[in-house]
Amino acid sequence: MRVASLDLVEAVSAGETRAIARMLSRAESGTVEARAALDLLYQRTGRAHVVGITGVPGSGKSTLVAKLAVQLRSSGRKVGIIAIDPSSPFSGGSILGDRIRMGELAGDRGVFVRSMATRGALGGLARGTLEAVDILDAGGYEVIVIETVGVGQDEVDIVRAAHTTVVVSAPGLGDDIQAIKAGVLEIADIHAVSKGDKPEADKAVSDLKNMLGLGVALKGKIEGRLVPVIKTCSPKNEGVAELVGAVDAHRKYLSTSGEFEQRRQAIRERRMLKAAEVLLHDEFERHREGRMAKLLAELGTGHISPQTAARRLLAHIGMEVSE
Amino acid sequence: MRVASLDLVEAVSAGETRAIARMLSRAESGTVEARAALDLLYQRTGRAHVVGITGVPGSGKSTLVAKLAVQLRSSGRKVGIIAIDPSSPFSGGSILGDRIRMGELAGDRGVFVRSMATRGALGGLARGTLEAVDILDAGGYEVIVIETVGVGQDEVDIVRAAHTTVVVSAPGLGDDIQAIKAGVLEIADIHAVSKGDKPEADKAVSDLKNMLGLGVALKGKIEGRLVPVIKTCSPKNEGVAELVGAVDAHRKYLSTSGEFEQRRQAIRERRMLKAAEVLLHDEFERHREGRMAKLLAELGTGHISPQTAARRLLAHIGMEVSE
Repeated sequence: MRVASLDLVEAVSAGETRAIARMLSRAESGTVEARAALDLLYQRTGRAHVVGITGVPGSGKSTLVAKLAVQLRSSGRKVGIIAIDPSSPFSGGSILGDRIRMGELAGDRGVFVRSMATRGALGGLARGTLEAVDILDAGGYEVIVIETVGVGQDEVDIVRAAHTTVVVSAPGLGDDIQAIKAGVLEIADIHAVSKGDKPEADKAVSDLKNMLGLGVALKGKIEGRLVPVIKTCSPKNEGVAELVGAVDAHRKYLSTSGEFEQRRQAIRERRMLKAAEVLLHDEFERHREGRMAKLLAELGTGHISPQTAARRLLAHIGMEVSE
Repeated sequence: MRVASLDLVEAVSAGETRAIARMLSRAESGTVEARAALDLLYQRTGRAHVVGITGVPGSGKSTLVAKLAVQLRSSGRKVGIIAIDPSSPFSGGSILGDRIRMGELAGDRGVFVRSMATRGALGGLARGTLEAVDILDAGGYEVIVIETVGVGQDEVDIVRAAHTTVVVSAPGLGDDIQAIKAGVLEIADIHAVSKGDKPEADKAVSDLKNMLGLGVALKGKIEGRLVPVIKTCSPKNEGVAELVGAVDAHRKYLSTSGEFEQRRQAIRERRMLKAAEVLLHDEFERHREGRMAKLLAELGTGHISPQTAARRLLAHIGMEVSE
C-alpha cells in the first residue's frame, strides 16, 4: 500500500491527470494512506498562484471562471479549478444548481476541474478543499481557481486560503443585497462587475469605485495598492484579459511587497489549527459511546455546564486545560 | 472573590437587572470567576423559551422584534433580547447599522436588551451569546429572543441554539436574494413576511407557502407540523399577535411531541463541543511563543504538512491522536 501510494505521489507530481483524479478522491476519504501521500505531496507544493473567486448566486461567476480559464490557457499556463457546491447542513444535498459551463475547455488537458461539496459542520470550505489545492499545485497547475458562492463565512475562509481574491458582482442588485455584500467588499483584492452589457453595469462600477474611494470596509487591506474594478461581459469575452492582467499584477504586487510570504504563512497556520480542530472532533466521535455519553447524560441533568463538560472531555482524552 | 461571585449569582437569580448587566459583562470577559459563576447559574436555567429571529438586513426584523417584545409583555411575560451585531472579521468593527428601535419599551423593567458583537474567528454566534441566554434564563426572563442577521453560518448556529426559529422575509427582494435564502428557508419553524402593507407582500406570502407546500429544502424539519407563514406590518402592529401565537404554539408542539427535550440535548452537546474547541484554541495561544512557533517555522520550510503539524501540536499538549 505504501509503495502504491509512493507511485501515486510520483504520478501526481508528474502531472498525470488520472493519478490526480484518484488522489483527489483519496484525499476526500481521509484514510491514513491518503494522509501520508498528502504529506509527501505537500513538500512539492508552493509554485501555484491560488485565486479565490466569489460572488452571490446569479452573479455569473461560473461563466466568468470558465472564460478566465480559457484566457489563462492562452498564455500557456495550466489551470486547476475547484468549484465548491453549497450544500445544506440539514439535507446534505446541493441547493443551488450553479454549474460550471465548461464547453470551451472540454478536451483541454491543461485544465483540471473538480467539483466539491461543502459540509456544513466544518464551515464554508469543504473538508479536503485545501488538500485539493495541494494536489493540483504538486501536479504542476500554475493557477488554481477556487470558486465559491459568496455568502457569509465562505468568503472569510476563501480569502484566508487564496493568495488573490476576486469578488464578482452583478449590476442591478437591490439595496438589500448590497448590504449583505458590505462584508464581502473588503475581502476583494480585485472586483469584477459581471454582465457588463447591462445598462446598469457602468453605475455598478462607479458605485464600487466610490465605495472603495471612501475606504468603506477596507481598512488594512489595500495599503499602497488600489483595488481594481473591472467590467466584464463573459459571452462577449470582454474584460476577461484585463481581469487576468489584474490577477497577475496582484501576484506581482504580493511578491514585491513581501506580502506573499506573510499570506502563505498565515494560510499554513490557519490550516494547522483547522486540522487540529478536525482531529479533536474525530477524537470526540471515538468517545461518543463511552465517556462522552456519560458527560452528555450529566449535561442533561443540568448539574454541570457545557463548559465544565468540555473540560472533563478534554481531560479524558489527555489534555489538561489550564485555568 | 468567590463570595462576591456567589452574591452576584444570587442577585442574578433574583432578577436584579444591574446584577444581570454586570454578569453579562463578566461572562464576555471569560475569567475564572466568571466561569465559576456561570456554572452555578447554569443549574438554574431551563425555564426560558429561546426564540431565534433571523432575516437579511433590510428585512425589518429589528422593528418586528421590538413589536414582538411589546406583545409578549402584554401577556405579562418577562422578555430578554440579545441582538447580535455583525462585525467584520477584518476590521473588528460593526459594518451594518441595523439598530433596534426600542422606543415603546424604554423604561419597562420586564424587558432586558443586550447588544453583542460577533467575532469572526468563532463563527456566527458571538462568544458569550449562549452564556448570555443562560444568564437571562436564570434571571427569570421567560422568552429570550436572539436576533441575528440572516446570512450564511449565522442561521445554522442560531437554529442550533434556539428552541424556535423565526425567519423574517421582506417582500419584493429579487431572485438572487431568494436563491441565497434557499438555505435559510429550511431552518424556519415559523416564517414572518414583513412590510405587509407593500403590494408585493401577499405574493411573498403565497410564494413561501408554495415552496413550503412543495417541501423545498424542508426535509426532516416539519414532520407532523405545518410551518406557518405570517404577514406582519410592524408600524401598524399587524400580525404581531398572530406571530406571538405561532411562537407559543410551536413551544407547545415541541413539548407534546417530545422534540423539546431532543432539541435541548442537541444544544447542550453542541455547546460542549464548541466550548472544547474554544479551550483548544486558548491552549494553542498559550503555546504560541514556544512549541507552536517552532512548528510554524517548520511549516514555513514546507517539510511538514499542516496535518502533521496539527498532530504534533496536539501531542505536545498531551493529546495522543489515534491513527
